[in-house]
Amino acid sequence: MKQLTIQSSQRNYPIVMEAGLRFRLKKWLNKDYSSILVITDDQIADKYLQDVVDSLDQKNIYTSIVPSGEASKNIEQYYKLQSKAIESGLDRKSLIIALGGGVIGDLGGFVAATFMRGIDFVQMPTTILAHDSSVGGKVAINHESGKNLIGCFYPPAAVLYDTETLTSLPYREVRSGYAEILKEGLISDISLAEELLPLSLKQISSVQLENHLEAGIKVKAMIVEEDEKESGVRKYLNLGHTLGHALEATLGYGKVTHGEAVANGMLFALHVSEKVKEQQLPFNELYNWMKINEYPIIDIKEKSISELIKSMKSDKKSISGHIQMVLLNKVGEPAVENLDDSSVEAYIKTFIERMNKL
Amino acid sequence: MKQLTIQSSQRNYPIVMEAGLRFRLKKWLNKDYSSILVITDDQIADKYLQDVVDSLDQKNIYTSIVPSGEASKNIEQYYKLQSKAIESGLDRKSLIIALGGGVIGDLGGFVAATFMRGIDFVQMPTTILAHDSSVGGKVAINHESGKNLIGCFYPPAAVLYDTETLTSLPYREVRSGYAEILKEGLISDISLAEELLPLSLKQISSVQLENHLEAGIKVKAMIVEEDEKESGVRKYLNLGHTLGHALEATLGYGKVTHGEAVANGMLFALHVSEKVKEQQLPFNELYNWMKINEYPIIDIKEKSISELIKSMKSDKKSISGHIQMVLLNKVGEPAVENLDDSSVEAYIKTFIERMNKL
Repeated sequence: MKQLTIQSSQRNYPIVMEAGLRFRLKKWLNKDYSSILVITDDQIADKYLQDVVDSLDQKNIYTSIVPSGEASKNIEQYYKLQSKAIESGLDRKSLIIALGGGVIGDLGGFVAATFMRGIDFVQMPTTILAHDSSVGGKVAINHESGKNLIGCFYPPAAVLYDTETLTSLPYREVRSGYAEILKEGLISDISLAEELLPLSLKQISSVQLENHLEAGIKVKAMIVEEDEKESGVRKYLNLGHTLGHALEATLGYGKVTHGEAVANGMLFALHVSEKVKEQQLPFNELYNWMKINEYPIIDIKEKSISELIKSMKSDKKSISGHIQMVLLNKVGEPAVENLDDSSVEAYIKTFIERMNKL
Repeated sequence: MKQLTIQSSQRNYPIVMEAGLRFRLKKWLNKDYSSILVITDDQIADKYLQDVVDSLDQKNIYTSIVPSGEASKNIEQYYKLQSKAIESGLDRKSLIIALGGGVIGDLGGFVAATFMRGIDFVQMPTTILAHDSSVGGKVAINHESGKNLIGCFYPPAAVLYDTETLTSLPYREVRSGYAEILKEGLISDISLAEELLPLSLKQISSVQLENHLEAGIKVKAMIVEEDEKESGVRKYLNLGHTLGHALEATLGYGKVTHGEAVANGMLFALHVSEKVKEQQLPFNELYNWMKINEYPIIDIKEKSISELIKSMKSDKKSISGHIQMVLLNKVGEPAVENLDDSSVEAYIKTFIERMNKL
């Protein structure tokens, strides 16, 4: 078992990682709740919902199952869950448990944050990717115009990570999650980045996975403790996300996984960093890592550039119409840069050329 | 001009009351905002929107006008306003101004609280009633099943009260607002309560009004500073609201004003207080005040009791299915009481009998 504590302005909360944790949930709830609503998706429900309900061992447990996938992070599902909470008689002393990946954590968390002005919620991530989104208190739903545009900062009461639920992840999900772990290495943990870059994800042991998760969460925790509301260093966590989000939005959510889009976004961020900072960065190493591990290398077309730029400008980080990107001075040393449209356009063009030569 | 400062966990913010303040807004914004969205309703827009826009004196000002009335505090309007904010290019350095009564303040505030995880907003109340809702950081929308069930705690950057906008209020709105001022007197300011109870609201001068507003806001401010998240004394502000909200919900929103419903709810609360606390309370004085000032005395029917109780139980304050009411030990000394259904039913019956004898 591994345990960390995150300090937030509203409360401190534990992150617990343990194989089989879903059978011992009661132990980690430090309050008596009048009722509990477990929110999960239709893929996770079959595998783990009953275990969770059983281990809570109390009356007034309700469950709500939403379709799996990013499309569920919308206003309709949000309102349905609010209705479910009301119909089930949840009150201010109730708990919501978000059992699933980042979609469920973000959606369930935003419901909890705004149900009767906020009730407790517990994150139970079931993907590697969600190690990132479950820590730090960001909860949100999507708007047609962009991801996570509607949401708030609302720390969970606990993050309870049953690492056993990761063993059955499809390889594509492993890949998606590792992009965020690599990101954490690139911005703040050189040895983690150096360990990951030559690694084939298909050959990772469960011990390695737990260690990588812990290292990634430590980076995330350190950053969100320093800057909970993303006015400063928290922005560094967006390395690869400016183009990444735009790729997800323009390709259509679900075509590539979040991590696959972020990996491509990081490659672009390293390209821009080399240009802006005039430094040698592990561009080729990242490219090779993506190849070894079968990340799709997204073939950006010249004609899609204007659409990508429009999408990048609608990003929450964008201020006064500039595009904000996280760049690296070197590995472990990120910096935020505001770029105008024409510079970004030029960088995308040279990026396309560079990729065509590889 | 009158000015107070409210301390909240997230920030301190000023409340400014001044005639003609809408012509001097720029002075009270302590930041440069990249853009501003003014949200108001179709009744207020004609009167004051242009003044507000002119006095902001900057580029990138957008306006959004929603239909006046409680019905606008719903999920559809909420989402429309989010879309408007996105389309207008608002970013994290933008401001939302809620110009109007409590509906606009609650709705606009909840949009601001959740747009890109929270941007600044300013309350510009245009009703007496909104002196209460604009202070304390509660923002919300309604669910079909009950008022304010979806929302959060999110303090404004400022409350800017142009008292000139109150001079054109219909008498019914004056009455609605004074119910909340009287409530503040009853729970915490004996001299305010004693001054108000014999008063005919039709004969109030603007100086008296400003003084009453200030006294009411001071009570509210003191309470929310002590208990921002409503875990203790803030509940006292719900005097009259348990039955009041149920009356509004069961009669249909808009049939009675919020203040009219609260006045009836306070009468009931005094009735119950006399029974539970075995104390003489100003029940008759409140009844006479309501009669003088033409508050509708709601004729509760025996057959509607079960529906009222169901509605009272769906109140956010209700825990584990009990009905929570604020009672008075005496004027200025409130207490929270959890009551079971059968007790509440019995109290409603004796209340109906008592009212029939008046």
